[in-house]
Amino acid sequence: MSAPHFERVALIGIGLINSSLARVLRRDRLAGEIVACARRQETLDTATKLGLCDRTTVDPATAVAGADLVVLGTPLSAYAAIAQAIAGALKLGAIVTDVGSVKQAVIRDVKPHMPAGVHFVAGHPVAGTEHSGPASGFAELFHDRWCILTPVADTDPGALATVTALWQSAGMKVLTMDAEHHDLVLAITSHLPHLIAYTIVGTATDLEETLKSEVIKFSAGGFRDFTRIAASDPVMWRDVFLNNREAVLEMLQRFSEDLTALQRAIRWGEGQKLEDLFTRTRAIRRSIIEAKQA
Amino acid sequence: MSAPHFERVALIGIGLINSSLARVLRRDRLAGEIVACARRQETLDTATKLGLCDRTTVDPATAVAGADLVVLGTPLSAYAAIAQAIAGALKLGAIVTDVGSVKQAVIRDVKPHMPAGVHFVAGHPVAGTEHSGPASGFAELFHDRWCILTPVADTDPGALATVTALWQSAGMKVLTMDAEHHDLVLAITSHLPHLIAYTIVGTATDLEETLKSEVIKFSAGGFRDFTRIAASDPVMWRDVFLNNREAVLEMLQRFSEDLTALQRAIRWGEGQKLEDLFTRTRAIRRSIIEAKQA
Repeated sequence: MSAPHFERVALIGIGLINSSLARVLRRDRLAGEIVACARRQETLDTATKLGLCDRTTVDPATAVAGADLVVLGTPLSAYAAIAQAIAGALKLGAIVTDVGSVKQAVIRDVKPHMPAGVHFVAGHPVAGTEHSGPASGFAELFHDRWCILTPVADTDPGALATVTALWQSAGMKVLTMDAEHHDLVLAITSHLPHLIAYTIVGTATDLEETLKSEVIKFSAGGFRDFTRIAASDPVMWRDVFLNNREAVLEMLQRFSEDLTALQRAIRWGEGQKLEDLFTRTRAIRRSIIEAKQA
Repeated sequence: MSAPHFERVALIGIGLINSSLARVLRRDRLAGEIVACARRQETLDTATKLGLCDRTTVDPATAVAGADLVVLGTPLSAYAAIAQAIAGALKLGAIVTDVGSVKQAVIRDVKPHMPAGVHFVAGHPVAGTEHSGPASGFAELFHDRWCILTPVADTDPGALATVTALWQSAGMKVLTMDAEHHDLVLAITSHLPHLIAYTIVGTATDLEETLKSEVIKFSAGGFRDFTRIAASDPVMWRDVFLNNREAVLEMLQRFSEDLTALQRAIRWGEGQKLEDLFTRTRAIRRSIIEAKQA
């Protein structure tokens, strides 16, 4: 599919994902004009300084006026208010999409506000780092990663094709999925890992002061990898858990049962059970390496 | 401290750590002769092909004969039998040390077998990767990492200084610590992270087949990092958990309580609690980066 072109793109939120997308739009000249919108002027000044946009505004409605593509990239809790605020300012035929890590909640919060003649396509480019803000983005972030779009029955096929082409231009492999299924898959591949990383780093933080300094010193033994994940944006992740509650709690329940079983095996010295599990988990790593996602 | 020199070094086990040490010994010409010992002839053949040793044997007693330094680097469950087997063959004045991830159990299993005039120094170079076997080692593995030695009241100061100099030659920062304290610190920095990674990868492995293939596809969202840790050597890690039971169960208990609290916060939509924790954990990451252990 050929690369899309937009007269005006409005990026609502200019953090890691949207600022990386801005770099792609610039690199490939996919947008005539980029308008960046954020709550804080400081963030917008940084985006301007980095050459990520042509205009900035703190007002979402001003940002989307005349835009043929609008990309929501704020924490999820802001979506409903933004959707309501921009509804009246959206151009007829405009495409509104988003980059949020939860999809059922996004469809629930955004779609009802979209006026007739505006096309909403919920999406999730599955890529990221532990860094946040416009300075942390880079165009290669999306390269060879998956982007999941979650159209509903009345999603416009043309708009879906355009959003697909956009993420393909960024180097992503794009597929569509039911929003409910997306939320379940992401609960285990992304949300639960983050929750667990946050928890263990929190557990370490609560240790006696002397022990805590040693945790930092000897973090190379495994802990270090968790701290990277647990350094991810606090507000974004708060919103993910609040908006994908059911699926996260379901996966967390399975995890807790498995952890309790291992705890019991350790307590009773059941070495074979431990070895069996640890051998099985090695195979998953091999599959990920073979799928070139390592 | 100047680099030590050994007439003959016996490496009992030639996996990731001991094969990396062999590369250091070769690189810096710290050993007149290196004898490698492993249970499987295939492993020894690989070690020979890689030039890691001058002689090989499957018999620990043969390996240590005439050696002035013996380094135990097998899974922990083999230590007691090896210590018993080599006791009669050890040279007077020989130094026996080890690289195990648990230290109280090692002192318990090895020390009673050591004859008078042989110096035992329990040690733990805190470094590693998820790969195992002699081909996976590399001399730079130890660079800028910490090595913890856990001497007891009657540990020979000269032997302790020699083992310290050995790991310093490998590029490590060496410190001493009480064995009990070591086991507690490592339980939170290394053992619990591995246990949790094994668990979550196991939980994903047990999902319905279609969901499982998607977990692999979309692993870039966080899950991927856990699979790396969960690909670590199964037998080595089985032995770590069986031999550091008390400390691991203690840390696991704290972790479970914290996880339950987070689960409750998600269920009841307590966003502020989530955000507070996620903000606190970011600071630990910064400390690790500042300590140059990232």
